[in-house]
Amino acid sequence: MEPGDAARLGPGRAARAPPPRLLLLPLLPLLLGRGLRVAASASSGAAAEDSSAMEELATEKEAEESHRQDSVSLLTFILLLTLTILTIWLFKHRRVRFLHETGLAMIYGLIVGVILRYGTPATSGHDKSLSCTQEDRAFSTLLVNVSGKFFEYTLKGEISPGKINSVEQNDMLRKVTFDPEVFFNILLPPIIFHAGYSLKKRHFFRNLGSILAYAFLGTAVSCFIIGNLMYGVVKLMKLVGQLSDKFYYTDCLFFGAIISATDPVTVLAIFNELHADVDLYALLFGESVLNDAVAIVLSSSIVAYQPAGLNTHAFDAAAFFKSVGIFLGIFSGSFTMGAVTGVVTALVTKFTKLHCFPLLETALFFLMSWSTFLLAEACGFTGVVAVLFCGITQAHYTYNNLSVESRSRTKQLFEVLHFLAENFIFSYMGLALFTFQKHVFSPVFIIGAFVAIFLGRAAHIYPLSFFLNLGRRHKIGWNFQHMMMFSGLRGAMAFALAIRDTASYARQMMFTTTLLIVFFTVWVIGGGTTPMLSWLNIRVGVDPDQDPPPNNDSFQVLQGDGPDSARGNRTKQESAWLFRLWYSFDHNYLKPILTHSGPPLTTTLPAWCGLLARCLTSPQVYDNQEPLREEDSDFILTEGDLTLTYGDSTVTANGSSGSHTASTSLEGSRRTKSSSEEVLDRALGIGDQPVSSRGTRLVFPLEDNA
Amino acid sequence: MEPGDAARLGPGRAARAPPPRLLLLPLLPLLLGRGLRVAASASSGAAAEDSSAMEELATEKEAEESHRQDSVSLLTFILLLTLTILTIWLFKHRRVRFLHETGLAMIYGLIVGVILRYGTPATSGHDKSLSCTQEDRAFSTLLVNVSGKFFEYTLKGEISPGKINSVEQNDMLRKVTFDPEVFFNILLPPIIFHAGYSLKKRHFFRNLGSILAYAFLGTAVSCFIIGNLMYGVVKLMKLVGQLSDKFYYTDCLFFGAIISATDPVTVLAIFNELHADVDLYALLFGESVLNDAVAIVLSSSIVAYQPAGLNTHAFDAAAFFKSVGIFLGIFSGSFTMGAVTGVVTALVTKFTKLHCFPLLETALFFLMSWSTFLLAEACGFTGVVAVLFCGITQAHYTYNNLSVESRSRTKQLFEVLHFLAENFIFSYMGLALFTFQKHVFSPVFIIGAFVAIFLGRAAHIYPLSFFLNLGRRHKIGWNFQHMMMFSGLRGAMAFALAIRDTASYARQMMFTTTLLIVFFTVWVIGGGTTPMLSWLNIRVGVDPDQDPPPNNDSFQVLQGDGPDSARGNRTKQESAWLFRLWYSFDHNYLKPILTHSGPPLTTTLPAWCGLLARCLTSPQVYDNQEPLREEDSDFILTEGDLTLTYGDSTVTANGSSGSHTASTSLEGSRRTKSSSEEVLDRALGIGDQPVSSRGTRLVFPLEDNA
Repeated sequence: MEPGDAARLGPGRAARAPPPRLLLLPLLPLLLGRGLRVAASASSGAAAEDSSAMEELATEKEAEESHRQDSVSLLTFILLLTLTILTIWLFKHRRVRFLHETGLAMIYGLIVGVILRYGTPATSGHDKSLSCTQEDRAFSTLLVNVSGKFFEYTLKGEISPGKINSVEQNDMLRKVTFDPEVFFNILLPPIIFHAGYSLKKRHFFRNLGSILAYAFLGTAVSCFIIGNLMYGVVKLMKLVGQLSDKFYYTDCLFFGAIISATDPVTVLAIFNELHADVDLYALLFGESVLNDAVAIVLSSSIVAYQPAGLNTHAFDAAAFFKSVGIFLGIFSGSFTMGAVTGVVTALVTKFTKLHCFPLLETALFFLMSWSTFLLAEACGFTGVVAVLFCGITQAHYTYNNLSVESRSRTKQLFEVLHFLAENFIFSYMGLALFTFQKHVFSPVFIIGAFVAIFLGRAAHIYPLSFFLNLGRRHKIGWNFQHMMMFSGLRGAMAFALAIRDTASYARQMMFTTTLLIVFFTVWVIGGGTTPMLSWLNIRVGVDPDQDPPPNNDSFQVLQGDGPDSARGNRTKQESAWLFRLWYSFDHNYLKPILTHSGPPLTTTLPAWCGLLARCLTSPQVYDNQEPLREEDSDFILTEGDLTLTYGDSTVTANGSSGSHTASTSLEGSRRTKSSSEEVLDRALGIGDQPVSSRGTRLVFPLEDNA
Repeated sequence: MEPGDAARLGPGRAARAPPPRLLLLPLLPLLLGRGLRVAASASSGAAAEDSSAMEELATEKEAEESHRQDSVSLLTFILLLTLTILTIWLFKHRRVRFLHETGLAMIYGLIVGVILRYGTPATSGHDKSLSCTQEDRAFSTLLVNVSGKFFEYTLKGEISPGKINSVEQNDMLRKVTFDPEVFFNILLPPIIFHAGYSLKKRHFFRNLGSILAYAFLGTAVSCFIIGNLMYGVVKLMKLVGQLSDKFYYTDCLFFGAIISATDPVTVLAIFNELHADVDLYALLFGESVLNDAVAIVLSSSIVAYQPAGLNTHAFDAAAFFKSVGIFLGIFSGSFTMGAVTGVVTALVTKFTKLHCFPLLETALFFLMSWSTFLLAEACGFTGVVAVLFCGITQAHYTYNNLSVESRSRTKQLFEVLHFLAENFIFSYMGLALFTFQKHVFSPVFIIGAFVAIFLGRAAHIYPLSFFLNLGRRHKIGWNFQHMMMFSGLRGAMAFALAIRDTASYARQMMFTTTLLIVFFTVWVIGGGTTPMLSWLNIRVGVDPDQDPPPNNDSFQVLQGDGPDSARGNRTKQESAWLFRLWYSFDHNYLKPILTHSGPPLTTTLPAWCGLLARCLTSPQVYDNQEPLREEDSDFILTEGDLTLTYGDSTVTANGSSGSHTASTSLEGSRRTKSSSEEVLDRALGIGDQPVSSRGTRLVFPLEDNA
């Protein structure tokens, strides 16, 4: 580390925007606190009125002009998105797979960026500025006395003296440049919530251990490896004189953190379309969802790493542990916030008959989910992370209590929001390459970064997979590992983290590099997914509810993976006792309390809390006649386990919900006799039997018993 | 008029917010133009760094605190809405009708307002202010030199010298006070769009003439009567010394305009619930939707009324005609914008196969509808008005081209947005009574306003109804007129218009009065709707698709309206030739061009444009086998008229879609022979036969032929 390192951190952080969190909720400055605008006392003289009227008219005209430009620039983005949507349709229509919609959005963004950059005149004027000397420090509000009238000004940001003139630059370029916090507070939350809410729970939970390992350990490993490699690159750049400003070790680590957030949106879309292997899908999707959260918290912990004494830059154990503490604190706090709001929503939807009014239900669901974000921000945690866990909790509990209409409404609402936000971010990325005015292109750094993320990804996937395979019954094959290695795309989260702070030279260089990495990975890796899948012999055409597939698959199989489907191996992956403990707690207590499903609490709780149990248990639980409102089995881990607990599972060959069919009762009782562990396995969908739950019945296709 | 009137207009307008339209799109200041924040050049000395780091830390802490408060205040609103939703559910559950959800939202708002006002300490501090003298005029951007560093400030508003200290007031009150433009640009558009999109077209169109008369003539009459009455009240107040500041004639007219926007949301909700008379519903709903648009444009035209020569306040013909011209210009411009975007969306959805991908379709629909708003604002028209007509156009054309899933998605999306926005506005109103800090309660003005709106409404409804009844075949009965008189509630639009400009004393008085009028009308009139319906003998329990109802109605009828159902009278209401001309143009050319329905263009267009006709006609039109995707007959005027044109209408007694049932073919041919005018009537649902269209078949219940 260098002298001045720590001191640099302080101002560096603050300089990104003098009130650095003031804009954290960009909706707020706009929504709030403008109400105190007080009337101008009209001056009494007619002449004064006349001149002031003229003056105000000029201001009004100028403001109107600015307003129009604002509308035009927002229209530009809408046009971009509309174009993207139409082209996506064309691509989907013609089954073009080499370019994903996000890649497309970036290309259109690039084109519009070029037009805006080189096609519009560099008007200055318009923005009248006046210097005014102030002592002490910058205040957030300023009262200015203009020939007897007082005007209120709010602090917008600090400007380096050298760049005062560049403030008055191309108006249009300026208009299309958004506040970075918009990405963090308006566009990311719906994306992340949707990820949590649409999690394919069955496959996610049966790979939970591996996903957690990849997301937490893997991201940390990747962050430190990338950070250290980049520090080497930076040292090299200094040696050859390529670096013109400061670049500290913590900056390198910060870069490692932001670039470790993978976003395989392109790969996952293709997986979805081709029905690729569900376990691989779950691993990739789960990892990317969680490592976004890890990367956010990691990056803010690194920023908080500030050794005591401003001039010491040696390793400071206290600061390090403080950072670790901050990481754990923020993460667990955000997790708790999200989970709590989800649980409250579940309770509200369970104990009211709100499901008779889907509109009210949807509105409540939306408000509660949004309040998670605000609650976390209000408590100083990370709203985006809270929203992720809120989404998972809502899907796991609340979703069961919703009416059929609300289920589709909420899913569709967040799907639309997610789609718009994601494509907006990607088209903005394309635009930013030409319209962002503080790019620092450093070829050495960029090449170094590409090498570093490659090595970081490798050091993340292969060793971890090796250790995981020691514990996993169903090993993660080499082809899966290669595919995971290949799918390390960077996307919206890396961009949002990078653009959040572009105040210092180092951060600008990081931003430019991140942008190029996103471009490269989305285009090249996105385009190469289909060939790669085929080359790595990864199964496609898998029905997510029916795995492993029969060998004579009705879907297209790029190449059969004979040895991989060794069924014995995959019987009990990830059945760690901790997970089982959690599962039975969830199943016996949480689900019955929070939803209409599960065993009645009166049977699972000790006798002395019988009254409480009776109050909390939904009457529907006792009422076996009424099938649970259940549509998307992927959203619900198992409803059928209720049946298992009572030992009356029903098995049918055709997968239709047979209710105590006589022909299968023998089979059912045989299964019930098997060891409890196996039962749990099957209830979790972990076993070798494709378990599809219908209502309160478990239904096993008999095909492999034949 | 008074001396100083015109001069007052200028500054008065400008003073509401120095850049008066800068905030017109409140999303924009937040989204755009903050990107030029440039790095602070780090000072080189370690000591300087140290002190600056400390300083920045203080700023950061302060900003973080402010951010938390922002989150908390937004959380307050979410809590309010959540409470409202839960109570609405309870009310709906228990069938409580005396208080509507909006009334409820206001009550909760009031309670929270009282708590915030009297329960929170009046902290000052926090907002550090500094006076700084500037010459010339106020600039929109200010660069301030603070001990060598430059900070950028943006203009927020003008502050009257007397109130400088009040700027530093209760923080929390300040936080819950929103920018007035938020109402206009974020909350109103979804409400208005939803109104247009969910318009029950059949009933709307058959009362179109009356609705237009009420909305345009009626609102103008009401505005002028209220304006003049209030001018009398103001004169009186001056006489008795109750008025402490200026109040001009144009201010009175402005008040007349804003308070003429009716919003019978409460009444309509009860109508909907009780299935009250559909014609009355259409009249009330149609009038309220359109008069919102009229009131917006009227109020901005009145603001633009500025006699030449600043000191003359006599009637100025030039200025008056300029105002009328502005009214017509803005109105027709906004109308065109809305219609054009709707038509473009219809074309896009027709000629692409986007309906295979409902997500893309919904996103496109949403973006195009939003772009109307921006387009209108960019061109200097009124976005809200454009959005209304866009909604109507989308419902009339685009809706037909959407996939079934997108239809429900778009409806639900806008329904949720509308619900949230409406309840937010009403709960904010409740809150504003206590948290808004510039109330001017003037009992004389308030009483005068109540009398004036009563008289204005009476002068609007009764004479107009009299003249309309001269032309209408189905007269608007006295009970309907009384009900319309009674339903003159004021709501979201009046509030949004009133809060938009609260700079001057007169405007503050208007705002307070408007708030009280909204409270009174929503609570009292809302609560009195059910008794009033019963007292006025207005039919309830009417199936909107089956009118007039059989006398032995299965629904509850509060009191039979025997003489009203004189069927001969209602045969051809509103069948003015202009409307018929439009209808056949729409049916023969627009619908076939823009949607998949209607007669093939090859048959309606002249022979020489055969090629064009063939290109534009959807193949589905020829394909009688495929029934048009048709679900909500209220959304579509008539699909069945295609059949009528070809003279093969099918009539069934039970209303089920019979396809060429032999038993009814005789009846069908008899009908086809009737005069072309009657056929059109029936096709429009105007005739005495309840016409319900299914697919491409017209189906007439035979009951009244028996």
